[in-house]
Amino acid sequence: MENFDFVSFRHVELENGFWQKRYELNKAVSVKSVRDRFEDSGRFDALRFNFLKTGKRPHIFYDSDVAKWIEAVAYLMEHDRKAMHEHEALIDELVTCMAAAQREDGYLNSFHQQIEPQNIFQKRGNHELYCCGHLVEAAIAYDKATGKRALLDVMERYLDCIEKAFITEKTAAFVTPGHEELELALYKLYRHTGNEKYRNMAEFFLTNRGKVIEDTVYADALKGCQDDVDIYHLREANGHSVRALYLYSGIADMALENGDKALKAALDSVWNDMTSGKMYITGGVGSTYRTESFTVPFDLPNHTAYAESCCAIAFILFALRMRRFKRDAKYGHLIERVLYNALLSSTSLDGRSFFYVNPLEIALEEYGRETAVPLKNRERLPKTARQEVFSCSCCPPNINRMLASLGDVICFDEEHAVIEQYISATVHSTFGDIRVAESYAISGKVTVSSKAYTADKITLRLPEWNRGHTAKMNGKPIYGTEKDGYITFEVPCDFTLEIDFAIAPRFVASNPCVRANAGRVALTYGPVVYCLEGVDNGPRLNRISVSPDAVRDAVLAPDFHGLLSIRLPGKRDCDCTQLYFDAQAANTSPVQLKFIPYFAFANRGESDMLVWVRRD
Amino acid sequence: MENFDFVSFRHVELENGFWQKRYELNKAVSVKSVRDRFEDSGRFDALRFNFLKTGKRPHIFYDSDVAKWIEAVAYLMEHDRKAMHEHEALIDELVTCMAAAQREDGYLNSFHQQIEPQNIFQKRGNHELYCCGHLVEAAIAYDKATGKRALLDVMERYLDCIEKAFITEKTAAFVTPGHEELELALYKLYRHTGNEKYRNMAEFFLTNRGKVIEDTVYADALKGCQDDVDIYHLREANGHSVRALYLYSGIADMALENGDKALKAALDSVWNDMTSGKMYITGGVGSTYRTESFTVPFDLPNHTAYAESCCAIAFILFALRMRRFKRDAKYGHLIERVLYNALLSSTSLDGRSFFYVNPLEIALEEYGRETAVPLKNRERLPKTARQEVFSCSCCPPNINRMLASLGDVICFDEEHAVIEQYISATVHSTFGDIRVAESYAISGKVTVSSKAYTADKITLRLPEWNRGHTAKMNGKPIYGTEKDGYITFEVPCDFTLEIDFAIAPRFVASNPCVRANAGRVALTYGPVVYCLEGVDNGPRLNRISVSPDAVRDAVLAPDFHGLLSIRLPGKRDCDCTQLYFDAQAANTSPVQLKFIPYFAFANRGESDMLVWVRRD
Repeated sequence: MENFDFVSFRHVELENGFWQKRYELNKAVSVKSVRDRFEDSGRFDALRFNFLKTGKRPHIFYDSDVAKWIEAVAYLMEHDRKAMHEHEALIDELVTCMAAAQREDGYLNSFHQQIEPQNIFQKRGNHELYCCGHLVEAAIAYDKATGKRALLDVMERYLDCIEKAFITEKTAAFVTPGHEELELALYKLYRHTGNEKYRNMAEFFLTNRGKVIEDTVYADALKGCQDDVDIYHLREANGHSVRALYLYSGIADMALENGDKALKAALDSVWNDMTSGKMYITGGVGSTYRTESFTVPFDLPNHTAYAESCCAIAFILFALRMRRFKRDAKYGHLIERVLYNALLSSTSLDGRSFFYVNPLEIALEEYGRETAVPLKNRERLPKTARQEVFSCSCCPPNINRMLASLGDVICFDEEHAVIEQYISATVHSTFGDIRVAESYAISGKVTVSSKAYTADKITLRLPEWNRGHTAKMNGKPIYGTEKDGYITFEVPCDFTLEIDFAIAPRFVASNPCVRANAGRVALTYGPVVYCLEGVDNGPRLNRISVSPDAVRDAVLAPDFHGLLSIRLPGKRDCDCTQLYFDAQAANTSPVQLKFIPYFAFANRGESDMLVWVRRD
Repeated sequence: MENFDFVSFRHVELENGFWQKRYELNKAVSVKSVRDRFEDSGRFDALRFNFLKTGKRPHIFYDSDVAKWIEAVAYLMEHDRKAMHEHEALIDELVTCMAAAQREDGYLNSFHQQIEPQNIFQKRGNHELYCCGHLVEAAIAYDKATGKRALLDVMERYLDCIEKAFITEKTAAFVTPGHEELELALYKLYRHTGNEKYRNMAEFFLTNRGKVIEDTVYADALKGCQDDVDIYHLREANGHSVRALYLYSGIADMALENGDKALKAALDSVWNDMTSGKMYITGGVGSTYRTESFTVPFDLPNHTAYAESCCAIAFILFALRMRRFKRDAKYGHLIERVLYNALLSSTSLDGRSFFYVNPLEIALEEYGRETAVPLKNRERLPKTARQEVFSCSCCPPNINRMLASLGDVICFDEEHAVIEQYISATVHSTFGDIRVAESYAISGKVTVSSKAYTADKITLRLPEWNRGHTAKMNGKPIYGTEKDGYITFEVPCDFTLEIDFAIAPRFVASNPCVRANAGRVALTYGPVVYCLEGVDNGPRLNRISVSPDAVRDAVLAPDFHGLLSIRLPGKRDCDCTQLYFDAQAANTSPVQLKFIPYFAFANRGESDMLVWVRRD
């Protein structure tokens, strides 16, 4: 069991390419858009502790929404503090308000102090520890970016208060958080400050899970809140999926700190459970809106897929920690799958609006059903358009902070550099500056180079979709050594390594146990999952079928926003007037289909959408 | 616009065959079973007006449950009063209690008198007029069967009270019933008594629909309670499906009485709307449990199909009325479709238990999802086993009365006899006794004969599934004249007409707009829809695919309960360990499939079930 570390985004400069474009859009548009909507909706006022003036009522987790936005801004400041000037002023104002509002005993929560002081540490479902965790992460990020310690001081005082209420004096009405997050934040703070108290607190909250016999809030749902089993006996991913992934990340931090192999084995089981049966092809997880939960293996409905955007982020955080234990390409594969699909789909191409829920099918005719029933009886179908803000708006600032720290996923420093993700950037690794230049998702080509590399090897992750590649070192063909999904090359001090992965449109099938995808295929192109949209292919996309062989006739071309669309032949069931008729009489007509990247759906108005197309 | 009439079940003796078996099971087992469960659950006590002694709380529509059971018993008494002796004693007891409990002003409702007297005629959703309607039907049936008028007297007094509250003095808080049913009952009473008051009351309740501007109970759902449009402007089937079908039946009665062509045209539109896009292949309608409603055309999900058993019955009642306007085979086709599928599936093969909801797919793994979420957040998936009684137990006694009066559907008396349904029986028609002997759903053979027939022609409905037939008159080949889906033969006074319809297994496809059935086919054999069950074919039935051509290799054989099962070759997706993989690598293995009649599913324990199988 290793304890590798990735090169922090702080030492990575993104460069011109697919991902830098997203990074800049996040910085210039999304972070600003979230700030505006948070100002409108009273989220900042909540932390100004002046909600009474505004007449708006804070939500129980407004603090965490703002915290994630602060964290995003702090990350962006690391590379361009000047551009964040106005945001920095707002953050300083908020920190001043928080410091002033913090209670004598250290307690700090905008909702409970202003609305429900009688419920402080009384209701497990009230997200106080979750809010604290996100504020701790924000405080660390802000301290690192600016050297301003005020927020960190506030949070350390609050943690003293929490330690007293939960551990020393046990005056709190519950033992562990209803919504996990604080655990991983405490490990981060431990690493930032070196103060062992925070590690101990994290261990307390982790090792006391699964021991609650009776719980007033979640009495019928111990599994739902990850309290059915202690962390050493975790085998399956269960319950609220974002909470679960934050918990697993905290457990991974614990195992990374203490080297506990039993914990690592438990996490391996959970990882396998998720990736072998509970994950959409997009990398989305948590398939039901009912308590936003994981369900049973292979239960992956497409039109009611939940796949919350926060899960995409939390899954990357967990995978990045799992990668630290072992150089195994499956973790990088997962991160790539999530980045290009479940994460990107969350944000509109103009950067202004977001999905909370990321369905894999939209059948507008299904929404018509709803007009037949009274409002209170309506089904909870996913939204068909992205929104600027939600009443529960956890996802947008989470997307902000993930894209702001995207550099984290690119390179690991091991006995030599290991390139995990192909994102154009200069990485300031332990072994010298490494430049990655790519048109990975377009042509499959990547160039990795260094002018002054101090190790004698470099390792690259082979993409999961790769079916053959060629490589050149300083212009000459070279063959590397493959192991565990990686390829290692011997390199001189000054090298340019060009690698060309065989990218092509390919149809993918599902495990036959996935009922929703039975007899269906999904088109992929390298890391990108494709979909059909009604705007290109007409409504009622389930009338369409396609043969996997049709990729032979695929035509790729740049389309809206410069994205690559794929056209290929398919069939469409012919119109008929009868409701039921002899199957022998069923007819199809040939059609030219146009697929677009899944992440780009719902950017041209409300439309039908389908990832899993009937196999012909 | 004609006004034909069917030969009443009172003049029909069922004979040895498929349907007599069901009739006898209903009489010997189901009616008794419903009685026992109604006694246990306090339904009879409610009408004994002694619920206070039992400590059970009546439901708002217990009266209608008991009424339908009384109606069923009365129908059975027409042919075998002796066998109903004990039930008759109970009914007499109940009538005595009701007469004693009836208020001075005529009001009679066990729930409102005992539990909510303050809400009498105050809440439209409280089903008072619906309960009254069923009691009126019961009273008529009991009067006809026994000559005992006591219940009819009680109901006539109650109707005086209703007329006063709703029409004369308008003291009721609403105008028309929240749950329609009284309208058709009033027409029945008008025909039974000749008293025009009842026809006028029915017209009042029908013509005042669609005029409610504001409604306290259903303000957001005028469509849901059929109050969005007046009856002359009805075009689509909308809202609660049982209520809708009772309403349409009442409107048909009105048009049959007054010959109003505009009303008939409205009903034609509604009929087309239902049968061209809102009807399951089983004849079930009302596709969502959300307010038990019709939804939009082609929205026919299988695993969450509602298709309430009461709808099967109400659809037959409506179709029988529509048939009275015109000799058009589509009405008989519909009745046949419902009888052999949506109606029969409602009852277990032992006659003891019932489905309220009749899904077309059971995927047990979907039910596993539910364990992941707290009870209150669980999805409303259909029950996987029939039950003896429900808290809302409208269906079982409705099934009782439908099977008890099954003879109604067999023959119409027009210028000569028209055989609509092939059910072994002797029909005492206007034109003499006609004997129908059939093994219709087994061999496609029917014999229609008479010893002393007084007309010179006889007409038979050609089955919707018929693709050629041969006929013999008194042993010699004969050719009839076909028109509007019927065939007419010239017959002597003493004749034996043997007709042999070409019955064979056949796969049926859906209109491509039905998203749930895209790329799928259903096996039929004559009038019977078939399904796969997990108990025969293993779990996860969506792994199976079949070619419509496989019917060439079909083997039919008697199976459990003597039912015909059909074996034919199909394919099954092979196991694999990956969640997603190259579609070219997907494999199938040949399997021998066993299909059973849909109506017989869930008679051998809990099992997966599938009607619409993937087309290979």
